Amino acid sequence: MKLFHSPTSPFVRKVMVTAHELGLAERIERLPSAVHPVTRDGQVLAAHPLAQVPTLILDGGEAIADSRVICEYLDALAGGQLFPAPGAARWAALNLQSTADAVLDAALLIRYELTARAESERSQAWMDGQGAKIASALDWFETQVGALGGVDVGTIALACALGYLDLRFADLGWREGRPNLAAWLADFSERASMRATA
Amino acid sequence: MKLFHSPTSPFVRKVMVTAHELGLAERIERLPSAVHPVTRDGQVLAAHPLAQVPTLILDGGEAIADSRVICEYLDALAGGQLFPAPGAARWAALNLQSTADAVLDAALLIRYELTARAESERSQAWMDGQGAKIASALDWFETQVGALGGVDVGTIALACALGYLDLRFADLGWREGRPNLAAWLADFSERASMRATA
Repeated sequence: MKLFHSPTSPFVRKVMVTAHELGLAERIERLPSAVHPVTRDGQVLAAHPLAQVPTLILDGGEAIADSRVICEYLDALAGGQLFPAPGAARWAALNLQSTADAVLDAALLIRYELTARAESERSQAWMDGQGAKIASALDWFETQVGALGGVDVGTIALACALGYLDLRFADLGWREGRPNLAAWLADFSERASMRATA
Repeated sequence: MKLFHSPTSPFVRKVMVTAHELGLAERIERLPSAVHPVTRDGQVLAAHPLAQVPTLILDGGEAIADSRVICEYLDALAGGQLFPAPGAARWAALNLQSTADAVLDAALLIRYELTARAESERSQAWMDGQGAKIASALDWFETQVGALGGVDVGTIALACALGYLDLRFADLGWREGRPNLAAWLADFSERASMRATA
């Protein structure tokens, strides 16, 4: 398999943490990319119409985009349990994943606001709206720490979202007032899959 | 079950088309909302930290957000087949869904650019980048029409994405040069689930 990747993409990290947890990382050849919301990457576009990372090219040549789809594909390929079977555990893991992914989407929108347009075109109200979404999700994660499962696609997504905030939004100080979440990430970050993708 | 909805949200429509296909629509009580990326809706926020639609409140009180998670939950609840079992059909359906959802995300970003910020804060380059993503996805859909399955979460997502372009971006004229996709949507739109949610 081949994966269009970017070293700082949090969604690529989700895929690679998943691959490491499943013992599949060595089977994935990483291809460089220069994806961007305004200036697209023609090589990635030739493989998949969304021209985004992560995009996985299967051994048969089909391309699939979107970290959720790729992670579930890898889990099935490895016969893994990162996606629980249908039932309460699955909906909890998928809801955690979608909430963590939404934090990343909001964080990326703020980052694009600051880097992909002229200063005069920035909207503080827009960035504040995205920031409010991040804050309420973080507050909710703090209440959920005791109920989190072990390693599944939800907790992987959560760890990658928090790791991205540390990478790009260190000034946010998300740990303040959220000691349980901070301790949870410190523990989860010790995993070999997280260390290999830091 | 209760669903925070908005009558023009394409992701809500995805959920409701799914519910109609599964015979579950009558079991879903719809709750009004006023979600917005800048001014949030406190009632939806009290149920789920993302404060977005669709958000489904299960009979046990748990809330799940994100149309992908909600659609899969409903499919499992009804013992449906809208999410094929793991295998090539599933990855094709999920990849189609993620591509159609990405068209909606791009279309919504253009719409927010035009409605949720001052005219001086708009970026034509940003909107052009989103528009290019929509165009390449539409071109790819046109090539895939012959390979599409019947009714699954992928084709439902595709129909809702195209329906939203008709609602908000009629000037785009997406049917031009894409006769197969246009004919496919005309046929799919005859379904009772699509008519009930138009």
